Amino acid sequence: MTKDSLLHADRLFPALPAARDIARALYARVADFPIISPHGHTDPAWFADNKNFSNPAELLIVPDHYLLRMLYSQGVSLSDLGVRAKDGTPAEKDPRKIWATFAKYYYLFAGTPTKMWMDHVFYDVFGATQAFGPDTADNIYDLIDGQIKSDGFKPRALLDRFNIDLIATTEGALNDLRHHAALDGTTYAKRVITTFRPDDCIDADKPEFAGNLEKLGGLTGFNTSDWDGYLNAMRARREFFRKTGRATASDHGHPTARTADLDKGACQKLLDLCLSGKAAPDETDLFRAQMLTEMAGMSIEDGMTLQIHPGSYRNHNDPLFAKYGADKGADIPMRVNYTQSLQPLLSKYGNDPKLKVILFTLDESNYARELAPLAGHYPCLKLGPPWWFHDSPQAMLRFRDQVTETAGFYNTAGFNDDTRAFLSIPARHDVARRMDCHFLSLLVTEHKISMAEAETIIIDLTYNLANEAYSLDLEAKTA
Amino acid sequence: MTKDSLLHADRLFPALPAARDIARALYARVADFPIISPHGHTDPAWFADNKNFSNPAELLIVPDHYLLRMLYSQGVSLSDLGVRAKDGTPAEKDPRKIWATFAKYYYLFAGTPTKMWMDHVFYDVFGATQAFGPDTADNIYDLIDGQIKSDGFKPRALLDRFNIDLIATTEGALNDLRHHAALDGTTYAKRVITTFRPDDCIDADKPEFAGNLEKLGGLTGFNTSDWDGYLNAMRARREFFRKTGRATASDHGHPTARTADLDKGACQKLLDLCLSGKAAPDETDLFRAQMLTEMAGMSIEDGMTLQIHPGSYRNHNDPLFAKYGADKGADIPMRVNYTQSLQPLLSKYGNDPKLKVILFTLDESNYARELAPLAGHYPCLKLGPPWWFHDSPQAMLRFRDQVTETAGFYNTAGFNDDTRAFLSIPARHDVARRMDCHFLSLLVTEHKISMAEAETIIIDLTYNLANEAYSLDLEAKTA
Amino acid sequence: MTKDSLLHADRLFPALPAARDIARALYARVADFPIISPHGHTDPAWFADNKNFSNPAELLIVPDHYLLRMLYSQGVSLSDLGVRAKDGTPAEKDPRKIWATFAKYYYLFAGTPTKMWMDHVFYDVFGATQAFGPDTADNIYDLIDGQIKSDGFKPRALLDRFNIDLIATTEGALNDLRHHAALDGTTYAKRVITTFRPDDCIDADKPEFAGNLEKLGGLTGFNTSDWDGYLNAMRARREFFRKTGRATASDHGHPTARTADLDKGACQKLLDLCLSGKAAPDETDLFRAQMLTEMAGMSIEDGMTLQIHPGSYRNHNDPLFAKYGADKGADIPMRVNYTQSLQPLLSKYGNDPKLKVILFTLDESNYARELAPLAGHYPCLKLGPPWWFHDSPQAMLRFRDQVTETAGFYNTAGFNDDTRAFLSIPARHDVARRMDCHFLSLLVTEHKISMAEAETIIIDLTYNLANEAYSLDLEAKTA
Repeated sequence: MTKDSLLHADRLFPALPAARDIARALYARVADFPIISPHGHTDPAWFADNKNFSNPAELLIVPDHYLLRMLYSQGVSLSDLGVRAKDGTPAEKDPRKIWATFAKYYYLFAGTPTKMWMDHVFYDVFGATQAFGPDTADNIYDLIDGQIKSDGFKPRALLDRFNIDLIATTEGALNDLRHHAALDGTTYAKRVITTFRPDDCIDADKPEFAGNLEKLGGLTGFNTSDWDGYLNAMRARREFFRKTGRATASDHGHPTARTADLDKGACQKLLDLCLSGKAAPDETDLFRAQMLTEMAGMSIEDGMTLQIHPGSYRNHNDPLFAKYGADKGADIPMRVNYTQSLQPLLSKYGNDPKLKVILFTLDESNYARELAPLAGHYPCLKLGPPWWFHDSPQAMLRFRDQVTETAGFYNTAGFNDDTRAFLSIPARHDVARRMDCHFLSLLVTEHKISMAEAETIIIDLTYNLANEAYSLDLEAKTA
Repeated sequence: MTKDSLLHADRLFPALPAARDIARALYARVADFPIISPHGHTDPAWFADNKNFSNPAELLIVPDHYLLRMLYSQGVSLSDLGVRAKDGTPAEKDPRKIWATFAKYYYLFAGTPTKMWMDHVFYDVFGATQAFGPDTADNIYDLIDGQIKSDGFKPRALLDRFNIDLIATTEGALNDLRHHAALDGTTYAKRVITTFRPDDCIDADKPEFAGNLEKLGGLTGFNTSDWDGYLNAMRARREFFRKTGRATASDHGHPTARTADLDKGACQKLLDLCLSGKAAPDETDLFRAQMLTEMAGMSIEDGMTLQIHPGSYRNHNDPLFAKYGADKGADIPMRVNYTQSLQPLLSKYGNDPKLKVILFTLDESNYARELAPLAGHYPCLKLGPPWWFHDSPQAMLRFRDQVTETAGFYNTAGFNDDTRAFLSIPARHDVARRMDCHFLSLLVTEHKISMAEAETIIIDLTYNLANEAYSLDLEAKTA
Repeated sequence: MTKDSLLHADRLFPALPAARDIARALYARVADFPIISPHGHTDPAWFADNKNFSNPAELLIVPDHYLLRMLYSQGVSLSDLGVRAKDGTPAEKDPRKIWATFAKYYYLFAGTPTKMWMDHVFYDVFGATQAFGPDTADNIYDLIDGQIKSDGFKPRALLDRFNIDLIATTEGALNDLRHHAALDGTTYAKRVITTFRPDDCIDADKPEFAGNLEKLGGLTGFNTSDWDGYLNAMRARREFFRKTGRATASDHGHPTARTADLDKGACQKLLDLCLSGKAAPDETDLFRAQMLTEMAGMSIEDGMTLQIHPGSYRNHNDPLFAKYGADKGADIPMRVNYTQSLQPLLSKYGNDPKLKVILFTLDESNYARELAPLAGHYPCLKLGPPWWFHDSPQAMLRFRDQVTETAGFYNTAGFNDDTRAFLSIPARHDVARRMDCHFLSLLVTEHKISMAEAETIIIDLTYNLANEAYSLDLEAKTA
């Protein structure tokens, strides 16, 4: 088949010829730009150990919650997709069978970003020349399986092949960062960094919370049952993440965006309560709220960017979670409030020029109502790109459509792929670039901005804004 | 006037020529498909008795809450539209005067689906060749009046004329289904079915609740003041609806989407409280919540599809309700929560392959945030089409735009007309088909899906998805 | 530079040629229509005193919270923009330096309505022929400074130059309306009117509340600590606003849209509590809620239109408010509920043919869910245009897209500029007209309405609907 029938050169551009021409011209300026991936979930062991990936199914299907979610919604069992159950239900072990199941149901993904990402992997990364489907699945399996066994598809080689200037992984506060340490002295050290994600030591709803704080104390030498000691232990871990993992940012995935500004006595009482395991849901929420404010304060001290990713109801499907565990596609977004929730943090720290906070949402109703007005006022705030369910072409258009008129382009933070699906990273950044070109081409054809403005903005959206928002210190790109 | 000036052949297709051509080609494949109307509110007596309709105003205006709502909002009194008041206010009885009032204000409907449906009725169903308005109202009245008095416009003839394969009406749990029974032995029996709508025996906010449960007990022989007896009475009525009315689905119009999973003791106490008439609003809401979960359990037992239509504030206008009663255009949507609300039901039954649940909403902010992620994970869930206020071209685009990237097409349930306005059914399905073609043509022109994919999908959206979601057992259509 | 490169003749029209042609044709019909500005915040002293404006920075930058907000969000201090601080921080006094700072950061506004308004001011109002930016800022400063010192740019001359038929200012309930009185006997008296905005005498959260009620008593001779006296004092001020300021409307900026219908005893108790300064937040909210209903009752008595502008979290940034005061760009929208909130008011007064209520929102999620259904039913309700953050091209499209199919065009109230930025008024109305033409052209090209319908509607949207909604008694425009 022709390349255009598999992966059209004009895909995602507006169909209106006048706009498409502009989108093409803008895209030509940034299509080959290096990738900055400042927020994601790839496994640092890949880059430290640099071993070949095992097989196409284990690489592309079993760990991808977007795929699992859709297939499960149509009656495919997770065990048939190779996901191991805790109750001993046998999981399919033959990667070719898993692959065939996926191919059989590939039509379900029509119109979804998963289809666009997978197509990009098949036809661009691996160079398949047949359309993927039940009839061609075996051929394409062989093609991919052959390539991923080669040196050119080892993780570090892929960093080069994908032209990734920088990728950030995400680790819990107790992580020893051994994989990041192992990169020291290599040319990859500057390109693979970590992110400080201390939810496991902040979320007192988790049964491990008290145990985690004990470990945190052990790692840092601070008494973490004392409020000041607990905060100092966090400071110590942040420093460790900066030194050992070259972290420039922390990340926080709380159920709500609530923040608080309590006095020290109240904080100590709340910590005591949380450690006792007897805190009510509103109290653990308040504890997380206070800690978000504390983290903003530490960001001012140490320069790390604060990322807030609220509003996911994790593990919504109780029996599925009991059987298969987390991250199988059963996290569901909830309505979020930012205006009232963030007020305590913002009134305390929001005017400090040293603070950088990036806000994400799964609740698009906040774009125009709350997030754009907040980011269009507070100097510390930037809006992260459309996240998770919204990392898709039309959701990107809705984001720009609802945010730009109030917050402009320069209160946004560039693109994040936010993925553990390493092979899809080029596809995801390509979709984002194409959709930014799409959006800008509409502004140009409706005479809202000039072509010269668009040419500058597309470069900033593709590279410079992420570089600045995460203090990555890479060389800025210019037109 | 030319037909195109009254009802343009390309109406609702994108104006961009490249997209319009694709929309036309897709539409050509399904324009003449039979109609499946699996959820609606036509009167089964029409089909049982097969009498001619009385006059154009009684047929098209007086019972249509979309018309009443708009005209009332601009100062037209309901009495002038022939709606009978409880307080003895005289209602206009001359259908020609009612018709003239409607014609005078027809300009108000510019840009609304009502205008599109009525135009379709005037120019397509009745073949009017003048544009409807104050000057032509009388002529068109005569045209319609003449036709509806003919045999070719009797209800059963219209089922044939409209090419309706199947239509479902909706009846309360206490209904005797005599009209459906009357169709037994005719060729229409398989085409006209009922739906089990037990709100009158579940909603304890209604003063009739205790009385209704007594009647329910009388009909079934169960003691409905006993929790198990009450549930068994429901089971008996579900069976009666399947046997006598060929029902394949139940429907539930609760104010919220709340579900619950209480133990039997708590259920009995709640039932006692509801029967006492002393339940607080939160308690009647909890009772409905528990019953939604019970109904899902019964769906697994008997195979009936469960439809949930939450979020309407019924009879918002107190004095209007007191004077004219329900369904006069004064029901107003409310914000709805699905993620937390449905969790008890879904964690209990959501993974059962025998369960089918169709979710509807009047709160579009849920499409991308809650409904698409839920339907894109749980095997039991499908999303119903845009409902009520959203049964309109742009609202359909917003639905597909916000749902497809997460849930795809195959977690949606085809189109419902949801109407008692029988004459408008072809128009409503035509609008839905045109808008699905519109949406698909945009995906094709932006190279998100291929034309071949679109050709399959349009057939599924038009026929097969509704057939499957409601277990109608009609023969699937293929490309 | 060519005029088109600065301010394109086709700006904001659809790029699709078929639609653009229609938009152009519609726009040609209304481009030169006079402006009705029935809700805004210009200073009546300008029109009473008719003095020249001081300098470009004081006129165009220092008082514009849209500009301050964006510049502040990117780290520019308000003091550098000439905003005076309460703590003695020196503010920049050189208007050229303020102007240069603005020019340096003008690129931030790409894609925002501020850019469109300012461009219109530069290139259309003042006739600049260079693109505004750091290099041309001084030249354009000189150009503007020269013109605003001339007679042709005095406030009254600008009313003529801008072709403003009528402009409404907004004054608090205690205002003496001296500037409006000063216009008596001039030809401008009929063109400059006030609006009754009694928030300062209704919002008991404000520390001045009790003092304001004392003043209100003093002005009117009523005992404002007595419920009936308080209401009568309000009646007296409404009458004063009508007589002295030619007011046709009141305006209410409550945090929520809550309304209430309490008995008189409860009202007196609530007033006592509010006057005592000990009312809890829920009680002051209930007091405002009751007063919204009372104001609706008075509107029926005196014919004034009631405007409701809820949902802004005022002065969200505590330290910024303490230093610089209100209206510096730190008001943030909140989620709003209309369906339940307005029910008490609407059930009491919503069916009265004498009542006119205009609803505004900062929460777009309400358009399709609550506002369009409410306005599409209650005869008293009209929807105000997209407000504040939503006074922008794409937000206007979203408004029409989400409102029209349920409420049509005739339940909307035309355009308001809602601004104190006098020089931007022509730009704002021009944007609104262009976007209405844009929207209508899409309906015509998709065959949803005819060109003849669009030609009538655009005239109504531009002139007649505002005239009627605010009872301005200007001569209606016809096609």
